[in-house]
Amino acid sequence: MLGKNKLGACLPTFSSCADRYCLSGYGGGGTTVEEMLDLAVQVEELDGLEIVGNWHVNDDIIDDVRKLFADRNLEICMVTPDLWTQAKWGRGSLASTDPKIRREAVAEVKKSMDWAAGVGCGQVDVWPGQDGFDYPLQANFTDAWKWLRDGLEECAAHRSDVKVLVEYKLKEPRTHCYVNSAAKTILLIQGIANCGALLDIGHSMAAGENVAEAAALLHDHNALDYLHLNDNYRSWDDDMMVASVNIPETLELFYWLKKLKYDGWLTLDIFPYREDKLPVARNCFAWMKALSQAVERTGLDKIGAVVSKGDGNESVALVREMLVG
Amino acid sequence: MLGKNKLGACLPTFSSCADRYCLSGYGGGGTTVEEMLDLAVQVEELDGLEIVGNWHVNDDIIDDVRKLFADRNLEICMVTPDLWTQAKWGRGSLASTDPKIRREAVAEVKKSMDWAAGVGCGQVDVWPGQDGFDYPLQANFTDAWKWLRDGLEECAAHRSDVKVLVEYKLKEPRTHCYVNSAAKTILLIQGIANCGALLDIGHSMAAGENVAEAAALLHDHNALDYLHLNDNYRSWDDDMMVASVNIPETLELFYWLKKLKYDGWLTLDIFPYREDKLPVARNCFAWMKALSQAVERTGLDKIGAVVSKGDGNESVALVREMLVG
Amino acid sequence: MLGKNKLGACLPTFSSCADRYCLSGYGGGGTTVEEMLDLAVQVEELDGLEIVGNWHVNDDIIDDVRKLFADRNLEICMVTPDLWTQAKWGRGSLASTDPKIRREAVAEVKKSMDWAAGVGCGQVDVWPGQDGFDYPLQANFTDAWKWLRDGLEECAAHRSDVKVLVEYKLKEPRTHCYVNSAAKTILLIQGIANCGALLDIGHSMAAGENVAEAAALLHDHNALDYLHLNDNYRSWDDDMMVASVNIPETLELFYWLKKLKYDGWLTLDIFPYREDKLPVARNCFAWMKALSQAVERTGLDKIGAVVSKGDGNESVALVREMLVG
Amino acid sequence: MLGKNKLGACLPTFSSCADRYCLSGYGGGGTTVEEMLDLAVQVEELDGLEIVGNWHVNDDIIDDVRKLFADRNLEICMVTPDLWTQAKWGRGSLASTDPKIRREAVAEVKKSMDWAAGVGCGQVDVWPGQDGFDYPLQANFTDAWKWLRDGLEECAAHRSDVKVLVEYKLKEPRTHCYVNSAAKTILLIQGIANCGALLDIGHSMAAGENVAEAAALLHDHNALDYLHLNDNYRSWDDDMMVASVNIPETLELFYWLKKLKYDGWLTLDIFPYREDKLPVARNCFAWMKALSQAVERTGLDKIGAVVSKGDGNESVALVREMLVG
Repeated sequence: MLGKNKLGACLPTFSSCADRYCLSGYGGGGTTVEEMLDLAVQVEELDGLEIVGNWHVNDDIIDDVRKLFADRNLEICMVTPDLWTQAKWGRGSLASTDPKIRREAVAEVKKSMDWAAGVGCGQVDVWPGQDGFDYPLQANFTDAWKWLRDGLEECAAHRSDVKVLVEYKLKEPRTHCYVNSAAKTILLIQGIANCGALLDIGHSMAAGENVAEAAALLHDHNALDYLHLNDNYRSWDDDMMVASVNIPETLELFYWLKKLKYDGWLTLDIFPYREDKLPVARNCFAWMKALSQAVERTGLDKIGAVVSKGDGNESVALVREMLVG
Repeated sequence: MLGKNKLGACLPTFSSCADRYCLSGYGGGGTTVEEMLDLAVQVEELDGLEIVGNWHVNDDIIDDVRKLFADRNLEICMVTPDLWTQAKWGRGSLASTDPKIRREAVAEVKKSMDWAAGVGCGQVDVWPGQDGFDYPLQANFTDAWKWLRDGLEECAAHRSDVKVLVEYKLKEPRTHCYVNSAAKTILLIQGIANCGALLDIGHSMAAGENVAEAAALLHDHNALDYLHLNDNYRSWDDDMMVASVNIPETLELFYWLKKLKYDGWLTLDIFPYREDKLPVARNCFAWMKALSQAVERTGLDKIGAVVSKGDGNESVALVREMLVG
Repeated sequence: MLGKNKLGACLPTFSSCADRYCLSGYGGGGTTVEEMLDLAVQVEELDGLEIVGNWHVNDDIIDDVRKLFADRNLEICMVTPDLWTQAKWGRGSLASTDPKIRREAVAEVKKSMDWAAGVGCGQVDVWPGQDGFDYPLQANFTDAWKWLRDGLEECAAHRSDVKVLVEYKLKEPRTHCYVNSAAKTILLIQGIANCGALLDIGHSMAAGENVAEAAALLHDHNALDYLHLNDNYRSWDDDMMVASVNIPETLELFYWLKKLKYDGWLTLDIFPYREDKLPVARNCFAWMKALSQAVERTGLDKIGAVVSKGDGNESVALVREMLVG
Repeated sequence: MLGKNKLGACLPTFSSCADRYCLSGYGGGGTTVEEMLDLAVQVEELDGLEIVGNWHVNDDIIDDVRKLFADRNLEICMVTPDLWTQAKWGRGSLASTDPKIRREAVAEVKKSMDWAAGVGCGQVDVWPGQDGFDYPLQANFTDAWKWLRDGLEECAAHRSDVKVLVEYKLKEPRTHCYVNSAAKTILLIQGIANCGALLDIGHSMAAGENVAEAAALLHDHNALDYLHLNDNYRSWDDDMMVASVNIPETLELFYWLKKLKYDGWLTLDIFPYREDKLPVARNCFAWMKALSQAVERTGLDKIGAVVSKGDGNESVALVREMLVG
């Protein structure tokens, strides 16, 4: 735990990660959920893990899964409906041009909500990554947007004890995803009860956003519900270790999270293709602690005073002071 | 005129353009408004021009300006408040941390609205380009957003015969501008009467948007009020000639403009630093006509049928057929 | 065939493409080489195909492979050593920090050269995609560069009837690949006999290059040996259909290829994740033919006269004239 | 001074910076050279300043300029030929299609070399920023490259006591500059005596390079002659304060500079549009000292041992340890 925030991780953090060239994976992680959990428990700060529908949980094994985690003192912090790992979602899920696929996508989310409830988790992560387009003149934006809204509305109404969170991303696997920014996510879910947003640092940076600004905007619309942490070089979702590239903006995010009193999960979404898995998680948590402590040590008031001046020199000096004294 | 749309241009199209290295300008255009107009009239398709407050119009010369344009059969399609050419706006205008500057910014917009009314123009272009930040920990996003909304609300209420349009841009002159996407612009103006949006193709592309999708989104929120046309290489607002780089997406935009029944201005926002000015305008209009005719020739129904399929092969084939037959 | 150039394709053009999310592939293509060939033969313009070492050819099946292609009147235009599909290459091949892996990489290239000779192909494509780094302070650039040169030198000396071509790419699968631009490739192979370069349009664009300029630079250093064609949105190797996004620069490339008298292969490197495979190849070849014919129709002299003026207006007008008349 | 390296600054660091929107400048700096120097002397670590030909030095004032600096105990670390501030260079200088302009550009560089010698400076910074193109089919790459080489060769032969350094940049003021990467710069100057390179951190980052890798590559070709320091968000030459955005890569650069025994100037190239000038220089030098000391404290051997492993976890842990202990 980091102050009020619990620390989580997506399962790929502890698995053998693959990409489009090395489809069998770069090795070094667990294959079964049990193997991944056995790695995960060795990261002492970890409070919970995300699981993916169908892959890690289904109707037949709900109780087993719950026990698997409970035995290891780990929570399940998220159930993610599988809307992106099968060929049938390739041209879209909730916004597919095929009404049958749209129905299946809604059903998949609802199932995942039930599984979430079954394993004691209060939220699902709807990531419409396959909903988008690749080529010019390939998308009817108006229809797609309506289908997304209708689908989310139906899902969110399915049961009130599990909240539907929408995760946005600029691109990948499509060259253009429809739900691609914090602001567009807010427009999408406006007026839909039981529906919120998930902010992924790397998705935000690769979308050209300042991530702290995205957090503030989501908070202003009561939609800062959950965070994925990682880092990248701004042009792609590299899923690298937290603060390994962009330290000042990650520091800025931690200031804003405290200022906004965000008390939700801080969950790693890392793809450690070539790295040993345990040090990856530990490296991330160590940076997160260092940045969090730098904010605490300096104090919200002092930081806030600088932030409110809008003076570049003072901001740069403050960041340096907070990091290297 | 291009179908129902009138054709306009920003004045820099006909002036000597400068950049931060060659501050005296690369030459070849007019210096006074009159000189620029004398160039502009030679572009036969041109229906109107944009002017900037203080620089091209003020209380003392409203009648002269109106006459200058009327004598040449040119409309004034936009008055742009000067919120970005003076050092005093350097750290922000409507969202400056200095309340005095915020007051001046609101006053400047109101003045421009009066000037617009005086010259027979129904809209002003509020481009908050200086409102943003450069460094991490340099901005209080929440305050800035509130000040932007409050300022716009007051401006929009000033007079109902001139509409306040907000132009978004990801960056430049700041490394981060607050109003940086179509979706965020919609959030900004939500609930403010007499307030709309201006879509600049290049700003949209450099913000990572598909510009036709941005147009559709703005239209869905009754905010597709005005267009700036140009082109770039996606990472910067290069202000190049229309369709000189990105033909398929510009073609897609023209399809959507017709489908959405956009009947507003199509105004060039080009910075022809090193080019003769007249051929620049003519090149742009020639491409715009070619793309517009390609849409007409093919027909909205046929295009719409392909678009609705979401099949990459059909979309690519259609674009090729529309362009090279 | 397109003038003097033969038309090829990489095998993924006809296979079910996978990415890191949908590891089992999006479907629709062949699984075995035979199935892929049976698709390929239906694209009438196709002259040949690339194959990958180990996956499609090995010591035991050389004759079978040769026959498989000969029976279908298809050439094998490239054998690509497998330096990137197995976990063992994850931290590098020719430039691995592990000398044993470096030896294996050299052996793999040599084996592929033998296979190439065996199937009547005069070149191998060394793509050191795993040779690079992800994080700051993770690479000894000097060592890596020396290892790359030493390895290539040894491979190129292995046999003179098969030329070693180096394919550059800015990133992916590493966040930084060492061999990342045309100029750096030239530096890498300088002074190594029997070693050339492979230019991939998409790699060049995503590296911030103008692809025609890259072709001219390689040609000036006698290293324009082979081409991969595709397209993307400039920030990633999207492997999309040729000219589907960037038409003017692809047209410019075709002008330069003719001017430079490039008479090598024009090979598709497309990943049609969600598209039917045959129309993808046909769409690409149709655009290539259209652009090639536009150059022929206009004439090298006329184009060259405009190019040599350096006048933006004339260039934009020429492109428009060549495309839409 | 920072170890063996002297600390410099370009004059804009102490002047009122302008951009294309606010052409009269954002204010706060000096206007005359004397005013800028009077600011500069207040930055105690500063050893020298760069000046630009024509603007700050010419035949008539060489002695005055030398005295102006000597009186303040400041060196002139660079004379930059003015190849980019006048309209006549707009379509190119050394690589202009107009042979008369090419002659003038060569003459301008030679004059600057004489001025450099006159003020006791051993190098000039040839930045061919206007040499490039904006539109497809606007450039004859082969001719341009030859003109660049011929021009540089003639300049470098002018006098051996002043070295000609070439500064590369991907873009701006042109959308494409010919000399755009470290590798291409090496190719350009290969075989030309008395000709080297200038590495600008921000130009390198915006060109997609890892800046330490660029430094190592230049060093391997005896061309790491001079450094410009600043920072940016990777897609544009924002000319921000050193390490204000990208700390790990700037740290990595300082490790490599020490490892490569670079003992040249470390010169700020910052455009503090909206910031007070003195704190800008001090902020930069403070970060440079902090990073330099972190390298010294940790030791080249220890860092080198991690770098040579190529293990992401160890690299990330090392950076964190070096920064926040």
